[in-house]
Amino acid sequence: MKIPELLAAALPQDCVTTEAWALQSYGCDRTTIWPAQAVAVVRPRHIDEVQRCVQLANEHGFALVPSGGRTGLSGGAVASNGEVVLSLERMNRIVDFDPVDASVRVEAGVVTAQLQDYARDKGLYYPVDFAAAGSSQIGGNIATNAGGIKVIRYGMTRDRVRGLSVVTGKGERLELNRGLLKNNTGYDFRHLFVGSEGTLGVICEANLALAPAPADPLVLVLGVPRFADVLEVLASFRQRFSLSAFECFSDNGLRKVCAAHQLAPPLSTPAAYYALIEVDECDGAAEQAVAAFEYCVDQGWVSDGVISQSLGQAAELWKLREYLSETLAAWTPYKNDISVAVSRLPAFLVEADALMAARYPDCEVVWYGHIGDGNLHLNILKPERWSKDDFLSRCSAVTDELGDLLVRHGGSISAEHGVGLLKRDYLHYTRSPAEIELMRGMKALFDPRGVLNPGKLIG
Amino acid sequence: MKIPELLAAALPQDCVTTEAWALQSYGCDRTTIWPAQAVAVVRPRHIDEVQRCVQLANEHGFALVPSGGRTGLSGGAVASNGEVVLSLERMNRIVDFDPVDASVRVEAGVVTAQLQDYARDKGLYYPVDFAAAGSSQIGGNIATNAGGIKVIRYGMTRDRVRGLSVVTGKGERLELNRGLLKNNTGYDFRHLFVGSEGTLGVICEANLALAPAPADPLVLVLGVPRFADVLEVLASFRQRFSLSAFECFSDNGLRKVCAAHQLAPPLSTPAAYYALIEVDECDGAAEQAVAAFEYCVDQGWVSDGVISQSLGQAAELWKLREYLSETLAAWTPYKNDISVAVSRLPAFLVEADALMAARYPDCEVVWYGHIGDGNLHLNILKPERWSKDDFLSRCSAVTDELGDLLVRHGGSISAEHGVGLLKRDYLHYTRSPAEIELMRGMKALFDPRGVLNPGKLIG
Ligand SMILES: Cc1cc2nc3c(=O)[nH]c(=O)nc-3n(C[C@H](O)[C@H](O)[C@H](O)COP(=O)(O)OP(=O)(O)OC[C@H]3O[C@@H](n4cnc5c(N)ncnc54)[C@H](O)[C@@H]3O)c2cc1C
Ligand SMILES: Cc1cc2nc3c(=O)[nH]c(=O)nc-3n(C[C@H](O)[C@H](O)[C@H](O)COP(=O)(O)OP(=O)(O)OC[C@H]3O[C@@H](n4cnc5c(N)ncnc54)[C@H](O)[C@@H]3O)c2cc1C
Repeated sequence: MKIPELLAAALPQDCVTTEAWALQSYGCDRTTIWPAQAVAVVRPRHIDEVQRCVQLANEHGFALVPSGGRTGLSGGAVASNGEVVLSLERMNRIVDFDPVDASVRVEAGVVTAQLQDYARDKGLYYPVDFAAAGSSQIGGNIATNAGGIKVIRYGMTRDRVRGLSVVTGKGERLELNRGLLKNNTGYDFRHLFVGSEGTLGVICEANLALAPAPADPLVLVLGVPRFADVLEVLASFRQRFSLSAFECFSDNGLRKVCAAHQLAPPLSTPAAYYALIEVDECDGAAEQAVAAFEYCVDQGWVSDGVISQSLGQAAELWKLREYLSETLAAWTPYKNDISVAVSRLPAFLVEADALMAARYPDCEVVWYGHIGDGNLHLNILKPERWSKDDFLSRCSAVTDELGDLLVRHGGSISAEHGVGLLKRDYLHYTRSPAEIELMRGMKALFDPRGVLNPGKLIG
Repeated sequence: MKIPELLAAALPQDCVTTEAWALQSYGCDRTTIWPAQAVAVVRPRHIDEVQRCVQLANEHGFALVPSGGRTGLSGGAVASNGEVVLSLERMNRIVDFDPVDASVRVEAGVVTAQLQDYARDKGLYYPVDFAAAGSSQIGGNIATNAGGIKVIRYGMTRDRVRGLSVVTGKGERLELNRGLLKNNTGYDFRHLFVGSEGTLGVICEANLALAPAPADPLVLVLGVPRFADVLEVLASFRQRFSLSAFECFSDNGLRKVCAAHQLAPPLSTPAAYYALIEVDECDGAAEQAVAAFEYCVDQGWVSDGVISQSLGQAAELWKLREYLSETLAAWTPYKNDISVAVSRLPAFLVEADALMAARYPDCEVVWYGHIGDGNLHLNILKPERWSKDDFLSRCSAVTDELGDLLVRHGGSISAEHGVGLLKRDYLHYTRSPAEIELMRGMKALFDPRGVLNPGKLIG
């Protein structure tokens, strides 16, 4: 029997499809580098069916690509090698909510925004948030340890995970940590699965911690002529506030967003860079924010600024940052998602800036990122006249130089998007040969026949 | 050559000792169950020497016991089987501090209180705190993922760790996560080492996140006649405050502490249980606290209470909780350190209470714990007329029943003290056979010759 027939025989009939549109659509993520070449798409409704699927893969030696919302930016969910896509999208129930523990138990296919809304309805807050929240799924968030715009206060997806139900590559079911706050009984596999990009097991359910509902937001957008001064602005606001977001972006990015979405520029005087700052609205917050702003102007760090006067205006200001990634997609950008310790940013930026200027004389470079976490997205836009292949090979060469620079500054080649296929060959800039060897060992332990996402992450 | 000679030949001479007092003192932790039977004690000053030591152990097939302050309560640092104790106590430098990142880099032998003081001097806060902070070490805290009295607000030791330098059982050096806030480049080994109890590698240095300095504390001690009502009190205070601690203890424990330390009882009307609550002192906090207290009295949950009027009085009230563990040591207690989800506590307590009453009719049972995290310490006191061995075997049998109960309530057999030798045979109540098998595989990966802490945790 062929693989799709094997699957159809073992699972409810409507779980398996080989229709061309499905193979195409479920075979790609938001990278548009690798062609979709899946042989089938399986969409189970229950963890037992996931397990059956993994067992079949082991018995018959075919490969599975665990798949969430396919909003990933590193090719982790790409099936371009005759794999079977294992989509979790039908497992999208919110199984349980406990107000005392302030936790939810959800299936992996729950969409991030669905959980955010659910939490809000319960008077609580699910703080993992980013521009793809409307389609990314909890399973994908956990498998990539997604970050986003609220990390500075709430941490990464990892910090929400109190428990996981997984099916390992071997086909075993594990119940990890059972939602406990405290459980010191040996190696914490839960944290191993967070960020494992579908290479060790399929995440089927998760117990997640919710946060108290935050105060209404007060949002500022400040113009900052020199990039390094963004860090001075960060320090000034940090002294006065517990920040809930601190983002930055370059003017060329802003202009593209405004043009694409018919938005007015936030400031009458443009600046080379902008900082978007969010703090809790409360008594005196606006006065404090104005004082911090004026201090930054006096120091010459900030040229102009705006502060939200309503929730509506706060949301409008956020669009300038949130629409960036999607807007740039039109330019087929090559994305570097890098980080260094915040204290290392100034020195790193000087060198990174020089490197980009020297190596991409013909390309536009858009900078933005979660700079309060030391995380920058360097988007290299493809000049129209270049072919995709030429562009990619030029970018790959520069990524090697960027890798060397990151090594010198103790940084990471992937801050939040993960490794997947896109950064696999650059992994050694952040992880040592001994670590990569141990990663292979770990993979062999959980997935001895290598049925889960082969070729991703560690190759 | 004998082992001590091998070590003396390979390391600076004063690193190795075989003096009887040292073998005795370095061979035990705070459990007093297993006799010290170490063959040597090594106290390196540098990570290179640690590595040399692990390499020698691999070459010559002897066992090492990584050793911190030996305040552990599960026998993890016990050397009762002819092992070499590898003490980190001389590696006690604070290597680096960065105010921008609010982080420190410390060697493993830094004492917890030393780091707390250092952070305070810098205007910051190291929030991992418990009664053994004066002698436990950072390496031991990380290896056990220590919890303590501030978990409810700040999390466990795990949540502080931004980077680790370790020497694996194989003798390789790993630099894990390098202090980064965001680094999604594959399996996070850092979290695997946290809580690994010296079985995978020797933790030599750590990069730790410091917190902002907290406000002055306001402390309440409330008398609670029925244990289950402690949870109602918790919920009432949680509604009004972001708690920085919520502890509880039973009256028999309190009486012992007061007698041993000549302390006055906190309340004129004793109660069967007490809740100790800490919140930040700020405008209106005392009024809110009194309101919450009065509400609890009106509901019949609380019989009496006291609220601190000064920092001195707050510290005095804390002694009632902090002195408990040391005070009970005189009774050779058998400690159960268990947890369930907070929402499961009421149902669990009913059954646990009945079990203790039925199985320990002749023993005094002292209850206390970090109940805001679902974590209870059940201390069974040895009746004077019983031999230590009789007592232990009686307690072990009851621990099996407690294990069954925990399974039914989805709890953990070790919330914060770790497994070591003491809970090794009960690990299966919390981790499945598949998980334990995977733990063995992981051990084999990092420590193929089994030189690090053999027999601990997974046996
Ligand atoms: C506009 C835009 C903005 C973004 N902004 C951010 C941002 O700010 N921060 C950030 O971190 N990311 C960001 N991303 C990247 C992406 O959205 C996240 O990585 C997201 O968490 C991926 O979720 P997903 O469900 O789409 O996963 P997918 O893309 O479907 O899969 C991602 C990886 O996880 C694996 N996987 C998926 N589901 C499972 C499962 N159930 N079990 C095991 N493995 C599984 C896949 O095999 C793959 O390796 C952005 C993406 C876009 C398009
Ligand atoms: C009075 C009292 C109160 C306590 N209260 C609490 C509490 O509230 N919460 C809590 O969590 N614990 C508590 N404990 C338990 C204990 O203090 C903690 O587990 C502490 O973190 C142990 O640190 P240590 O340096 O003493 O470790 P040790 O006892 O020396 O070792 C503990 C384990 O860690 C390993 N280890 C030590 N150093 C290293 C290293 N550098 N690399 C690798 N492995 C290493 C050892 O092999 C052993 O397995 C208490 C203990 C006492 C005596």
